[in-house]
Amino acid sequence: MNNIYLDYAAATPLDDRVFEVMSPYLSDKFYNPSATYTAAKQVKKALESARASVAAILGVKSPEIIFTAGGTEANNIALVGVLRAYPGTHIVTSALEHDSVRAPALALASNGWSHSEILPQVDGRLDAKKIAEAVTDKTVLVSIMYANNEIGSVQPLKQIAAELELIRKARRQDKNSLPLYFHTDAAQAPNYLDLHVNRLGVDLMTLNGGKIYGPKQSGILYVDSSVRLLPILYGGGQERGLRSGTENLASCIGFAKALEMAQELRFGESARLQKLQLLFISLINSKLRNVTVNGSLKFRLPNNLHITLPGQDNERLLFAMDERGIQCAAGSACNASHEESSHVLKALGLTDKQARASLRFSCGRQTTAKNIQDTVQVLSEIVA
Amino acid sequence: MNNIYLDYAAATPLDDRVFEVMSPYLSDKFYNPSATYTAAKQVKKALESARASVAAILGVKSPEIIFTAGGTEANNIALVGVLRAYPGTHIVTSALEHDSVRAPALALASNGWSHSEILPQVDGRLDAKKIAEAVTDKTVLVSIMYANNEIGSVQPLKQIAAELELIRKARRQDKNSLPLYFHTDAAQAPNYLDLHVNRLGVDLMTLNGGKIYGPKQSGILYVDSSVRLLPILYGGGQERGLRSGTENLASCIGFAKALEMAQELRFGESARLQKLQLLFISLINSKLRNVTVNGSLKFRLPNNLHITLPGQDNERLLFAMDERGIQCAAGSACNASHEESSHVLKALGLTDKQARASLRFSCGRQTTAKNIQDTVQVLSEIVA
Repeated sequence: MNNIYLDYAAATPLDDRVFEVMSPYLSDKFYNPSATYTAAKQVKKALESARASVAAILGVKSPEIIFTAGGTEANNIALVGVLRAYPGTHIVTSALEHDSVRAPALALASNGWSHSEILPQVDGRLDAKKIAEAVTDKTVLVSIMYANNEIGSVQPLKQIAAELELIRKARRQDKNSLPLYFHTDAAQAPNYLDLHVNRLGVDLMTLNGGKIYGPKQSGILYVDSSVRLLPILYGGGQERGLRSGTENLASCIGFAKALEMAQELRFGESARLQKLQLLFISLINSKLRNVTVNGSLKFRLPNNLHITLPGQDNERLLFAMDERGIQCAAGSACNASHEESSHVLKALGLTDKQARASLRFSCGRQTTAKNIQDTVQVLSEIVA
Repeated sequence: MNNIYLDYAAATPLDDRVFEVMSPYLSDKFYNPSATYTAAKQVKKALESARASVAAILGVKSPEIIFTAGGTEANNIALVGVLRAYPGTHIVTSALEHDSVRAPALALASNGWSHSEILPQVDGRLDAKKIAEAVTDKTVLVSIMYANNEIGSVQPLKQIAAELELIRKARRQDKNSLPLYFHTDAAQAPNYLDLHVNRLGVDLMTLNGGKIYGPKQSGILYVDSSVRLLPILYGGGQERGLRSGTENLASCIGFAKALEMAQELRFGESARLQKLQLLFISLINSKLRNVTVNGSLKFRLPNNLHITLPGQDNERLLFAMDERGIQCAAGSACNASHEESSHVLKALGLTDKQARASLRFSCGRQTTAKNIQDTVQVLSEIVA
């Protein structure tokens, strides 16, 4: 019996070293960081030091980091928070976005704002020019994910940022004083990609602890100090008034450590997983017939493989793989329980039938070459 | 040097037995509960069993329990979620509410809804009739906290529920089809009070893990199946679409265990702490002059003591107490960093000067009679 986990895009185990730094905040250091006595002030100091560590990795100022209860909340604050500050304006997103960007964008679109959704090219990449063309005089936010959770496509954030900068310049000449902010959902990025905000050219960025071997429902929203936005949770005014609620110290400190480790390991892990990705593709091509790999191979997360096996039914495959100890996915876990097929695969032009014949494998720190060999072996046996 | 923690209303330590049940979900059982393989389904089952355990304690159905990332979020979903489902309607709250009720109510009031805030009597209790009188034809929600976090006053939820039921009957005769929901922020209640929803007569209830020896940023919103409300976080549609985001299993399971323990221990702890409360009051009266206890003594949490020491400055007192190893508070920790004095004390009619001369002591499971004796001794020395 195998025990092969290939669903790291859905959830990563908590790293032992992350748990270790969290642990005092799950026992002795339980104080409310807003309290006034010394012990509470020390806890507050630890929170601010976690914030500073996150800020340093992103190359930004500490107060620009807002701790949230996960990626979904960070994405919601970015979209709903910015648009609510500018009633009646417009938002541009892509058809590849995670539901935690897509759903708030759709909700805004039925509440007085307008929304344009940009389709990707067949390889799952977005064209920066096409995004720029969708920007109107009323656009205040463009939200494009850094790397896709289903097909692993990495988007050209820098090119998009450059296009948006041209539009900002033109607006200044036209005396259009509306801001044009650029947000990216970078939940899948930290294990493999550069997070330096200035190099990427974004004004807001979402990160999610649950995808980087950190605690679940931890995360941050980076918000450039120039960005005006409204909170979605009102209360005690924690996190610069943008995320009220007693801070979850263990979670913030665990998130900071997880992010630090992800960025430290990213070159080594990227190289290692890229080799496994190539091995995976070559084995699949040799052992299975007519398999298509979905999404760009060049601009892709090194841990992702998403394939279509024509004529197969992924529900049956997943069940049979699970029975033999291999855990993988049909697409986003968040959608696994819904009946509809993936909006990402639809956007790539796959038919419902092709989508139902598709599988996602997402590797991680514990994945070995043997795991890949065993997985392809089992898959080919099941298909045969 | 003492080591006396008397700020349990601000934060409770995580109970060892709670940590124990959380622990597998912080290591091996890290799966995304929305995934389709057996291991993920087991995690999902554990989540549903935690939900069922919370539901049983409240005497409600499992799907009526929504896990949230803390009390602030639960209060925001209740207020903003319900009011957004009924544009242009009215909400009634009290002047004693926590900021996580007050702030969303004020935000709604400046966004197309209207809001009435009811003042308490001098003893910090609310009059059910006065609340009923504030209800208009357009009121859809009344939100009254179960027990106050600053002065410990316990509110007459049953009487308020009975008044609201009369109004509902009258509305049916008047063919007014607007609902009239009753929400309570019960964050401070589970350690000492009955939580059975039918006995209390509420339609929505907020609970907060961080106040019941459970994990921080854990909590639930109970939402009766008849209640219509909109989400404030959009995304994958978890928690019946009312709280999107990958579930924090460790947190949900820890919350359920903490609630179970709080309710098991509540009779014993209430009796024990009531004795300490009486001891506290008698010692204070014998060792200090002119001390006033704020809030009702009869309808009060057994762990709370809130006093005014005329002529004193609470910042100085807190600092001196902390230096001698005693941790207590001036009021709500959430407000500790703000300059304004407490809205709760203002509502009781205290002047700013009186508010600045006030201290809150909140006891808990580790508090002993010796702690109380030492505290009063130190306080009397400082004041002298």
